Amino acid sequence: MTSRRGFLGAAGGLLAAAGTSISARAASARAAAGTEAFFGPHQAGIVTPQQSHCFFAAFDLTTEKRDDVIAMLVAWTNAANRLSEGRTALPLGDDPRIPAPDAADALGLAPARLTVTFGFGPGLFIKDGKDRYSLAASRPPELADLPRFNGDQLIAAKTGGDLCIQACADDPQVAFHAIRELARLSYDSAELRWAQTGFISKPADGSTPRNMMGFKDGTQHPADIDKSVWAGDSAPAWMRGGSYLVVRRIRMALEHWDRTKVSFQEETMGRHKYSGAPLGLKNEFEPLGLDRNDRDENPVIAENAHVRLANAAENGCADILRRGYSYNDGANFVAERWPPWRQGTEYDAGLLFICFQADPRTAFVKLFGKMAKFDMLNQFTTHTGSGLFACPGGVQPGEYIGQRLFEKA
Amino acid sequence: MTSRRGFLGAAGGLLAAAGTSISARAASARAAAGTEAFFGPHQAGIVTPQQSHCFFAAFDLTTEKRDDVIAMLVAWTNAANRLSEGRTALPLGDDPRIPAPDAADALGLAPARLTVTFGFGPGLFIKDGKDRYSLAASRPPELADLPRFNGDQLIAAKTGGDLCIQACADDPQVAFHAIRELARLSYDSAELRWAQTGFISKPADGSTPRNMMGFKDGTQHPADIDKSVWAGDSAPAWMRGGSYLVVRRIRMALEHWDRTKVSFQEETMGRHKYSGAPLGLKNEFEPLGLDRNDRDENPVIAENAHVRLANAAENGCADILRRGYSYNDGANFVAERWPPWRQGTEYDAGLLFICFQADPRTAFVKLFGKMAKFDMLNQFTTHTGSGLFACPGGVQPGEYIGQRLFEKA
Repeated sequence: MTSRRGFLGAAGGLLAAAGTSISARAASARAAAGTEAFFGPHQAGIVTPQQSHCFFAAFDLTTEKRDDVIAMLVAWTNAANRLSEGRTALPLGDDPRIPAPDAADALGLAPARLTVTFGFGPGLFIKDGKDRYSLAASRPPELADLPRFNGDQLIAAKTGGDLCIQACADDPQVAFHAIRELARLSYDSAELRWAQTGFISKPADGSTPRNMMGFKDGTQHPADIDKSVWAGDSAPAWMRGGSYLVVRRIRMALEHWDRTKVSFQEETMGRHKYSGAPLGLKNEFEPLGLDRNDRDENPVIAENAHVRLANAAENGCADILRRGYSYNDGANFVAERWPPWRQGTEYDAGLLFICFQADPRTAFVKLFGKMAKFDMLNQFTTHTGSGLFACPGGVQPGEYIGQRLFEKA
Repeated sequence: MTSRRGFLGAAGGLLAAAGTSISARAASARAAAGTEAFFGPHQAGIVTPQQSHCFFAAFDLTTEKRDDVIAMLVAWTNAANRLSEGRTALPLGDDPRIPAPDAADALGLAPARLTVTFGFGPGLFIKDGKDRYSLAASRPPELADLPRFNGDQLIAAKTGGDLCIQACADDPQVAFHAIRELARLSYDSAELRWAQTGFISKPADGSTPRNMMGFKDGTQHPADIDKSVWAGDSAPAWMRGGSYLVVRRIRMALEHWDRTKVSFQEETMGRHKYSGAPLGLKNEFEPLGLDRNDRDENPVIAENAHVRLANAAENGCADILRRGYSYNDGANFVAERWPPWRQGTEYDAGLLFICFQADPRTAFVKLFGKMAKFDMLNQFTTHTGSGLFACPGGVQPGEYIGQRLFEKA
């Protein structure tokens, strides 16, 4: 009983037994079983069609030994591939005198299009001035520490990390299980630093999903995904086909937002609430028309409206691929940051913002640097968590994630 | 644009416009659209087949006026019915000069079998010795405050409440949205006290779901649901067809559990991990065989095994209907309560235990009172949140939830 998918029928069991994910037979079975390939030129979970659930986890490395890190990445690679195929992280075996090789909480569940995406934080390369793994010279300039942005209220226990794993699946238990099993394989070398769930609910008619603010979110995509997302030819070999991930945990003052009249919400966003159309227009997918003025010669979409400031081209920034999720952590006590400075038990809910880009310095950092100062939406949002990670290029069978980084250095 | 379901097609829009949920036409459309009826002899969300997501919220009443409470319950009833039908909580209208009548975060999503279940906590009847709404005399004896159980580590901000709402749906955004809209309708009379998400992932083959511990959970059901769940004929009129809800937020020390050998996990549970069969047996659905001894005349299923102590009949207790969810709140710092007393960043994950019963005094309180003292599983679990609520009988069109309580008193 080594296969989750084995529960679903003999075909899945045979596939798991064959142990390969690249044959034609496997590819067709994969499509049928709702799996996403782990191996490939890029890591999965970046341009993969977005799954409905995410569990994002960041880890701190506790070992001082380079070989421990490599051993962990080997184990992570093998387990991530197995998990993506709907199998247990390790074969279960039948020895009751040891801890279960797989916690079994996802046993019997479908693969649910699980993707596992690994990222390397600045701390893998250098931490507290210490070059623990002889990797400092390999730190890419794109992986410069994020600056402190205006309004940041980052919680240390929800920020940073030497490594990250983004697990996305169409089932929250499958996403949790992936992080859990990978964390178990890292007990000797790393410890969990923070973790955050997210979800996104898509209308059945294929229309743009709405975020917690009740506005359509994701109407615009980068014009050229390849150019925006993937590190270019000038990148070091281990980052070729890779991407940089920025994560931000953004709490929304939903109680404040919900007391705000629709017209002000729309002015803030620069779009109409229900249709998603740019302000003053009728259709969600019409061009923003940022140069439109009203009869008093004021811009229809305000200078500090969210859509104007978030528009990469308008601000001379590179595009980002947004792949965020809503989050709902229940409620806790909070003092709002804006008038009327309400205090009380409010939702700890909002956006687990995740984006990918070729170079954060000319993309997220530049774009959000301006938004953090001027975006009208800031009065309803607080960034409480953050991270920046280099997601290496994809893995081929027989390789481990990031192998070219360690072999080069 | 007053209907979420309107987005899904003209038929849904027409139905919403008709504004009735009890015609034959509506009933058949309901089945097609994945809706659960709000009106009926019992509240929905108790014996309703379990949905995949839950958002549970508890509220404190802030008003001193009985009429405010009634007005809120009327508004809640109307909105809950609309939401259950996949409509917005209130008609959206088209006035941009007011806050949105519905936050619109679920606009375009299917009804997702949403159920909204209301409960009345002890504080509705009497609080701090004060009979705020002239209801003290109507407090049912079944609604006696829960005792302090062995090992309780209840967090005040995750415990209690004068009222509760359990929103369950096959979509986490739809469940969140229901609580959000109902909370908005209570701004003048109540405030959010605590809230907790939950989810359950069911194997596609219909087999028993597993909990976070990787064991099948829910193999046994009450023999007589009607007798176990619903308040009997001796109950006051407003509780006839109603039930008592106990909620417990149970954090699991998953890192400790995952380091425990399978044989000890199985001894603790009294069942085999992978098959779910009672210890020493082969089939999940075989009787527990609690009187079976091994060759040394020791019981096969230990005296303090979870399944033995959780077995109502064995302990002279009434059955409970368990309707719990797993929860995953990420990770935070914790000091484990048992050897080796690990401290660090660990999952804040476990079980949002919810159960329904005719009388908690002879059911949950008696059953868990013994388990809290003796269950081997306690070394892996900590109860951090708790609540007890009387869920009134079902509502008929034209009524509001709990109406017979207020009209009687």
